[in-house]
Amino acid sequence: MKVLVVNAGSSSIKYQVMDMTDESVLAVGLVDRVGIPGSTLEHKPLGKDEVVIKKDLPDHTAGMELVLEVLVNPEYGCIQSMDEIGAVGHRVVHGGEAFAASVVIDDQVKKVIRDCFDIAPLHNPPNLMGIDACQRLMPNVKHVAVFDTAFHQTMEPAHYMYAIPYEAYEKFRIRRYGFHGTSHYYVAHQAAEMLGKPYEDCKIITLHLGNGASMAAIKDGKVVETSMGFTPLEGLVMGTRSGDIDPAIVFFLMDKLGMDSQEANNYFNKKSGMLGLSGVSNDLRDVLEAAASGNERAQIALDVYYNAIKGYIGNYIAKLNGCDCIIFTAGVGENGIDTRADICADLDALGIKMDIEKNKVRGKKVDVATADSQIRIFIIPTNEELVIARDTYGLAK
Amino acid sequence: MKVLVVNAGSSSIKYQVMDMTDESVLAVGLVDRVGIPGSTLEHKPLGKDEVVIKKDLPDHTAGMELVLEVLVNPEYGCIQSMDEIGAVGHRVVHGGEAFAASVVIDDQVKKVIRDCFDIAPLHNPPNLMGIDACQRLMPNVKHVAVFDTAFHQTMEPAHYMYAIPYEAYEKFRIRRYGFHGTSHYYVAHQAAEMLGKPYEDCKIITLHLGNGASMAAIKDGKVVETSMGFTPLEGLVMGTRSGDIDPAIVFFLMDKLGMDSQEANNYFNKKSGMLGLSGVSNDLRDVLEAAASGNERAQIALDVYYNAIKGYIGNYIAKLNGCDCIIFTAGVGENGIDTRADICADLDALGIKMDIEKNKVRGKKVDVATADSQIRIFIIPTNEELVIARDTYGLAK
Repeated sequence: MKVLVVNAGSSSIKYQVMDMTDESVLAVGLVDRVGIPGSTLEHKPLGKDEVVIKKDLPDHTAGMELVLEVLVNPEYGCIQSMDEIGAVGHRVVHGGEAFAASVVIDDQVKKVIRDCFDIAPLHNPPNLMGIDACQRLMPNVKHVAVFDTAFHQTMEPAHYMYAIPYEAYEKFRIRRYGFHGTSHYYVAHQAAEMLGKPYEDCKIITLHLGNGASMAAIKDGKVVETSMGFTPLEGLVMGTRSGDIDPAIVFFLMDKLGMDSQEANNYFNKKSGMLGLSGVSNDLRDVLEAAASGNERAQIALDVYYNAIKGYIGNYIAKLNGCDCIIFTAGVGENGIDTRADICADLDALGIKMDIEKNKVRGKKVDVATADSQIRIFIIPTNEELVIARDTYGLAK
Repeated sequence: MKVLVVNAGSSSIKYQVMDMTDESVLAVGLVDRVGIPGSTLEHKPLGKDEVVIKKDLPDHTAGMELVLEVLVNPEYGCIQSMDEIGAVGHRVVHGGEAFAASVVIDDQVKKVIRDCFDIAPLHNPPNLMGIDACQRLMPNVKHVAVFDTAFHQTMEPAHYMYAIPYEAYEKFRIRRYGFHGTSHYYVAHQAAEMLGKPYEDCKIITLHLGNGASMAAIKDGKVVETSMGFTPLEGLVMGTRSGDIDPAIVFFLMDKLGMDSQEANNYFNKKSGMLGLSGVSNDLRDVLEAAASGNERAQIALDVYYNAIKGYIGNYIAKLNGCDCIIFTAGVGENGIDTRADICADLDALGIKMDIEKNKVRGKKVDVATADSQIRIFIIPTNEELVIARDTYGLAK
């Protein structure tokens, strides 16, 4: 069976076609500027040149229509006919407390996705638009929702409840959900293989470090705790997100700067993080470069970024009462040689010792701990699309 | 020399008279409901019965006048004449970035205390009222300010900067300050003695657990990091304060509940924490009792409370790259037998092993770790008044 994987954002659609007989990728692509003048589609079929198509796409249905045209195009397509696509897997950011696993989409599932609009206003509405568009165009195949939150649903109340009035949980479902679940899931299972023990027997700490960043602590095959919380704002310092701060800063600054909730949301999600503190960029590479050429604020931003990650490593070793391995994944985690080295520096008292030579590697699945390191240090390229495709295949076949 | 220690709150004045020749306490007392009908003064002189005086006290000057009358009262006073008081030490909560140590109060110091009104609106104004009242009544002695923030001023930018726009630091001095400094200072120095090594060579984690609660990580004689931040709201779960939460919860709930900044301040500082989550009480003893009799929300509140502390222990061991001792202090830390045991449970992978029998003790300076515990577990009764008196004596003599 071939599976189409769809990740629909507010103005973008990422897609991938995978042949599940050998899990090979037949094509990957990105539709950008959906609903905005100047839409483009970039399509990369296996073994052929990339194609770029410029065509105004007023909505997600128009975007998906173009994707399907491209997929069967005799010249740069990757399949003969849409009949070859046996199922569609949709990335959905928020499944609330309803879903601890992927699920075939029906009206009830769509209702839950809609019920979560309020707590995931940036992600769930476009995710649902993508589902609606695909269902309209491919009414005869199964559509599966794979949730970013599902993997973290194993957390206990001790780890997901906040110490605020209980009514906030009852009325508004305010609790820790966690995100990047498919990525944490994928690399944690890969790590168990590398450790050579059953996944359920491993104590694992995953570091998904991209422009968004989160960590998870995993034990007995369950997520014990994860750093993103009610929203993806909490936890580590990110490209433009503050991560953990004194909550009093929020209402203090709203008062001082005369911000309403929407503006505060924007301030802490879009103007903070590495960008806000360094004043240089949200891209870690730019901040590293600036710091190397003597930019003091860039250096402070890096120090704050590293410090938060180190703290969570210790925090999660305490929560797990031990640790078999820490895993670096996602853009920065897979490629950031110096970043990984700085994060692992001075953690030998916790049993973390990096082999600096082995660490000089990008995007490879490898153990970069010293032989005598108590805790293994893995670099594992993530593959969220593969998890989505596998879950979709599993539910549709 | 005898020193008067004053801790002025918005409607209260705590005081203590100490003889610095032997550091003995001659009297302790509390004026309550200052500026509110039904003011009372409770005065306990050394070796004599407690006295309670009911008298309406319209302001802090009236309150301090009554204190001075009581101190020299022939029947229940503790000194012959006010001339015996050689200096007055004032607890001041916020010294901003200006003070890393205690200081003799002059107009410039008062200006800084006033400049911090904005970032410590509940504490610095009454602290200054107390200073003004005492200076008016005792114009011929030195008055010393001892700041809650001073001890934490050794933190590096990596540990005190937040990943928000840099302008927030430049314009509003938003950064981590930390509080309970005199308590962390006192117990850390006591711990060095117990460890039998120079304070500067120790890696120490202090747990000040009272109705307010904070932790500090100390190395090379410096505070590396502390859990309270810009305000005392950040960090651990407290009686009525949330501690760490997803900052997005603040603007989400302000929007949903129609709260302004002042109401949000009240919500997260006064209605959250153990009280808000358990629905039982802000007092840990009540929550423990409720949980023991099967109250599920009370049990969740305890679990969340313990979980936060465990996380910070691991976090700070990472920041210190090792640890010689953790210290329990303040009301809960000194007396909470079960609480200490629950916090230290399942941390043996970090080298923390408690002797459950030794731990059955309240308010005593003692090591309750097992012989083979890598990290010592100390209980040390705190004494903030002694630190204030010593600093005051040192600057005034």
